Amino acid sequence: MSIDRTDMKWNGWGWANHKSDLAGNDAVWSWMASTLGVDELATTPAKSLDDITLPPSRLSETALSKLTQALDDARVKSDTFERAFHARGKSYRDLLDLRAGSIDDAPDAIVYPETEAEVFDILKIADEEALTLIPYGGGSSVVGGINPVRGESAKPIITLDTTRMNRVLSIDPIAMTAVVQPGIYGPDLEEQLLEQGFTLGHYPQSFEFSTLGGWIAHRGAGQQSTRYGKAEKWLVSVKLATENGLWTTEAFPASAAGPNLNQMILGSEGTLGIITEATIKLHHTPEVKDYRAYLMKDFTSGAKAMREMCQAEVPLAMARLSDADETRFFQAFAASSASKSIAGKLKSILQKSALKSRGFSNQPCLLMIGIEGDTETTDYGRKASAAIAKKNGALALGRKPGDAWYHGRFNSPYSRDPMMDRSLGVDTLETSTNWSNIEHLYTVVCESLATTTRQGAPGTGARGIVMTHISHVYPDGASLYFTFVFPRDLENEVEQWLKIKTAASNVIVTNGGTISHHHGIGTDHAPWMEAEKGPIGLSLLAAVKNDLDPKGILNPGKLISTPKEN
Amino acid sequence: MSIDRTDMKWNGWGWANHKSDLAGNDAVWSWMASTLGVDELATTPAKSLDDITLPPSRLSETALSKLTQALDDARVKSDTFERAFHARGKSYRDLLDLRAGSIDDAPDAIVYPETEAEVFDILKIADEEALTLIPYGGGSSVVGGINPVRGESAKPIITLDTTRMNRVLSIDPIAMTAVVQPGIYGPDLEEQLLEQGFTLGHYPQSFEFSTLGGWIAHRGAGQQSTRYGKAEKWLVSVKLATENGLWTTEAFPASAAGPNLNQMILGSEGTLGIITEATIKLHHTPEVKDYRAYLMKDFTSGAKAMREMCQAEVPLAMARLSDADETRFFQAFAASSASKSIAGKLKSILQKSALKSRGFSNQPCLLMIGIEGDTETTDYGRKASAAIAKKNGALALGRKPGDAWYHGRFNSPYSRDPMMDRSLGVDTLETSTNWSNIEHLYTVVCESLATTTRQGAPGTGARGIVMTHISHVYPDGASLYFTFVFPRDLENEVEQWLKIKTAASNVIVTNGGTISHHHGIGTDHAPWMEAEKGPIGLSLLAAVKNDLDPKGILNPGKLISTPKEN
Repeated sequence: MSIDRTDMKWNGWGWANHKSDLAGNDAVWSWMASTLGVDELATTPAKSLDDITLPPSRLSETALSKLTQALDDARVKSDTFERAFHARGKSYRDLLDLRAGSIDDAPDAIVYPETEAEVFDILKIADEEALTLIPYGGGSSVVGGINPVRGESAKPIITLDTTRMNRVLSIDPIAMTAVVQPGIYGPDLEEQLLEQGFTLGHYPQSFEFSTLGGWIAHRGAGQQSTRYGKAEKWLVSVKLATENGLWTTEAFPASAAGPNLNQMILGSEGTLGIITEATIKLHHTPEVKDYRAYLMKDFTSGAKAMREMCQAEVPLAMARLSDADETRFFQAFAASSASKSIAGKLKSILQKSALKSRGFSNQPCLLMIGIEGDTETTDYGRKASAAIAKKNGALALGRKPGDAWYHGRFNSPYSRDPMMDRSLGVDTLETSTNWSNIEHLYTVVCESLATTTRQGAPGTGARGIVMTHISHVYPDGASLYFTFVFPRDLENEVEQWLKIKTAASNVIVTNGGTISHHHGIGTDHAPWMEAEKGPIGLSLLAAVKNDLDPKGILNPGKLISTPKEN
Repeated sequence: MSIDRTDMKWNGWGWANHKSDLAGNDAVWSWMASTLGVDELATTPAKSLDDITLPPSRLSETALSKLTQALDDARVKSDTFERAFHARGKSYRDLLDLRAGSIDDAPDAIVYPETEAEVFDILKIADEEALTLIPYGGGSSVVGGINPVRGESAKPIITLDTTRMNRVLSIDPIAMTAVVQPGIYGPDLEEQLLEQGFTLGHYPQSFEFSTLGGWIAHRGAGQQSTRYGKAEKWLVSVKLATENGLWTTEAFPASAAGPNLNQMILGSEGTLGIITEATIKLHHTPEVKDYRAYLMKDFTSGAKAMREMCQAEVPLAMARLSDADETRFFQAFAASSASKSIAGKLKSILQKSALKSRGFSNQPCLLMIGIEGDTETTDYGRKASAAIAKKNGALALGRKPGDAWYHGRFNSPYSRDPMMDRSLGVDTLETSTNWSNIEHLYTVVCESLATTTRQGAPGTGARGIVMTHISHVYPDGASLYFTFVFPRDLENEVEQWLKIKTAASNVIVTNGGTISHHHGIGTDHAPWMEAEKGPIGLSLLAAVKNDLDPKGILNPGKLISTPKEN
C-alpha cells in the first residue's frame, strides 16, 4: 500500500495535515453568510474518532480464522480506525454520517489480499461462511459505491481492500499497453509509466486518492478525457475473479465477435467480480501541455464554441466552461480570500479588462481549453481552437489562468471540510446530454437546485448558491457539473439533502440527462437506474448479476438495487 | 424497399446485370491455372433457379392467415425466388449451397414489416404459433448470420426482412445525430445525409447491399473506420423490439450509469430483438478526400509506419497495407487482364520505378493512406503521414493508385462468381491483434492457409494462393485480412473448405487473434466463441439471451450456439 491511510482524513478529504486557507478566514465566512442570506455560520465540528464506539465485529471465529490463515494476521483488520475508514466513501451524505459518528454499519473486517490466489481464497471463504464482500480501492466514491448495505441480511460484511495489489506488471512499448494490478493509486501508476515515457492520462479530481480498479469499476472520466478517454475507451481487458472462477476477458484492438463483454465490467461497480488485473492503453508522455483561458460573453456562446471545436475534431485534451455564477463565485471568493489560486488571477484579469467596451455584459463565462500532445499536434490544436473561440466572441486571457487552474486542479475538494465545520452543506451533481438539449437541461437543473436549497434552508431569506460547468465534451454532447452550497438544516441534515438530491435527479432523468456522467451509481443513484436503462435493461443487468454472482455475495445493494433506507 | 431484389443475383454477388471482365478472359484463367498448379480450370456453372424445387412452406394456415392479417398479402412472401434469396448469405460456404441448389432449409416465408407495431405483431404471432424469426437486412453476411438453422426443432422459419423500414426519421444538426430505421441500404442513407451536409462514413465493402441494422447487429467496420469508427463508436442508441416489449436504450454522449447496454446490442446478431430505430453519430461531409499510395520495402516497415501514424494520432481515415503476395497478385493479375483497375496503374508504376536502385527487394508492399476531413485537418494529416512513411523508407506513388483503389473499392466481390464458375474456391478470413503480435499472427495464419489449401487441392502439385492486408488500424493493434484462392475439390467442396476454415480459425484463437474483426459470428464462427469469450463470458451471453428471448424465437443457432452440421 503506497499510502499510509493514517496520513489521510478518515472523515473528510485528503491528507490529514492539509492546511486550509479557509478555516480561519473571517472575510470568507461573512461573505458566504451574506451570500446565503443567513446571519451567521455556526461552528459545527465533527466527532473525533475517539468519541465513536462501533458495535463489535460480527465475524465468526471460524471465518476470522479462515481469513487469517488465507492471508496473515496483519492483513485482516478490524480496529476502529480501519472499520471507520472503510465505512463510507466521500460524498456529502457520507460525511454527514462520518462527522456524526453514525457508522454502526461499518464493515466487520477489512482484508488486504496481495495475489489473485488470495482473492480466490477470500471468495471461497465468503461463500462458505456466508459473508458479504465489498471490493474497495481508494474509497473515494461519492455515490455510496463502497458503503455497507445490510438490508434484510445479517451477514457479516468484509471489505476487500485492493491497495496491496498495486504493481505495474508489464508495459508493452509496441502496442502501447500496460498490465497493471487494480489497487494502484493514480500517482504511483503515472510515475511508473512516466519512467518509460508513457501516460494513461486519467486524472480525475480524486487522482491522488483513487485507484485504477475503481476507475474501471465505475466507468470514470479524468479531467482530460477529451484526449485520453473515459475508462471505457482506455480499457483493453481485465482479469476478473468471480464466484464461477477467473474470467480473462477478450483483449483485442477491435472485434466483431458478439458484444464486447469488457463493457459489462466497466460500470459493474464490484457487483460481478473483483478485478485482479487490467490491461490499459497508453499514450506517449505529451511534449506540450497548453492550458489557456478565454472569457465568453455568455454560457450559450461558450457552449457553442466548445461544440464547434469538438465537431471540427480539434485535438483537445480538455474543454471546461464555467457558467456566469461559477465564474462570478471564483471572482468573489477571491475578493474575500488570500488564496493564490486561479481565483486571484481571474479577479485581476476581470478587473483589468475593459469588458464592457468589448460587448461583455455582467454574465461573462470562463472557458478553459487544455491541449496536450506533441509539438505539431498541439500547435495545430491551439490555432484551431483559438480561431473557433474568437469566432464566438471570446476574449483571450492567455495561459496564466490556465496554468493556475492546472496546478490547483485536485484541490477543490479540500474546501468542503471547512465548510461543513461552519454549518454549510456542499454537494455536486453531474450528468450529460446531447448538444441540442444542453441549455435546457442546464436551466431546469439549476432551477430545481435553487428552489430546493432555498426551501430546505433554515430561516427566512436563507438560500443556496448553484454553480455549473461543462467539463467533458463529445461530438454529440457534453457533461454538466453542478456544485451547490447551502446552509444546513442542522436538525434534518439527511432529509434536507435527500429532498434536494431527489428533486434534481428526477429533473435530470425526465429531461434527457443521464443520472451520472462519471460518479457512478452506488446506492445513491440506484433509484434512477430504471428510468435510465428501462425495465428491459434492468432485467438484463439482473440476469448478468445472477449468472456471475448467484448468491449475491459481491457488493449487494449497489447498481441495480433500491438504496438503503436513510 | 429501395432495391428491387430481382435486379440482384440471388446466388452470387451484387447486380444481376453486372458484366465481369474476367469471365471470357482466357489469359487470366491460364495464368490462374499455372499459379495454382493445375492443368486447366473446369467450367462449373451454377444451377438455375428454374432447376430448383424447394420443399413446400411449412407455415400453417393459421400462422399464414395471422401474418397476412397483420401485414397484407403482398408483404408475406413464399415464392421460390424470395425463399431462395433469403436462404443464404454471401459467404463462400453459402455460395456452394446456392449454386448447387442445396437449400431445402430455405425459410418458409418472408415478412416485410413497415412499422414498429407490425414488428410487434410478428413477434406475437411467432410466439403464439411457435415460429422461428430471423431478422434480415441486406443479407450480405459471410458467416451464416441469416441462414436458417433448424437443429432439432421442426418450427417453421420466418425471415423478417427489414428493408421496408428504410427511412431517415430525423436529423439533429446541432448534436450531429440522426434517427434512422434499420432497413435502409448504405447508398440511400448517405444520400439523405448528404442533402444536409452530413455523412455517417460507414463504407464496408458491402455498402451498396447491406443495411444500417445489419452493420449494428454484427458490429461492423467500414473501410474508413479509422476516422468514422466501427459501429460501436458511431451508435448512440437503439429501439429494440423484444419478446419482453420495446427497449429504448440509453442515449447519452457519455455516462457512468452502470455498463453501457448499447454494447450488448452491438454484436447481438438478431438474437435478442429486432432493431426498429437507431440513433447514429454524423460527421460533416469531408471537404477533402485524399487517397494516396506508398511502396514499402517489406511488410514489417509498412506495419511500423502504420503503427507510428496511429500512435502519433495522425488523423487518418484509412490505412491499408498489402503484403508482398497481395501486391504481386495485383500486378500479375493486371498483366493478364485488360482491367482498368488499380492493378493496371500499379503495374505501370512498379515497372517504371527503378526500385532496386532505391533499396527495394522483390517483396515490395503497397501502402494506401486515406485522409478525409476539412482542408486544415487533411493538410496536417497528409504532411504528418507522409513524413512517417518516408522515415520508414517509403517510395511515394502519389494519388493515382489511391484514386483507382477508391473508385473500385466495392468491386472485388464481383470477381468471386466468375472464379466459382471455373472450379476455383475463394474465401476470406479476418482477425485483429495487438501490434506486438501482428507479424507472428500474420505468419502463422498464412502458413496454415498455404498448408491446408495445398493439402485439400485436387491433383499433384496443386496449391492455393494466400494474400493478406492490414486495413484497420488502432493505437494498440490492427486487423489482418486474408484472401485465399484454391482449386476446388469438386467431390468434397464443403469438407475441403471446412478443413481450411477450421485449421485457420484454431490458429487465430490460439495465437492471440479475435475470431472476427468485422465479419461477425453467425454459425461459422460460433465454435470459437468459447475460446474468445471464455466459459464465463459465454455463460453471461447465454443468460442475457435467456432473459430477453426465453423461448429462443430469435435467430437460433447463431452467436452462442454450435453451428449446424455441414
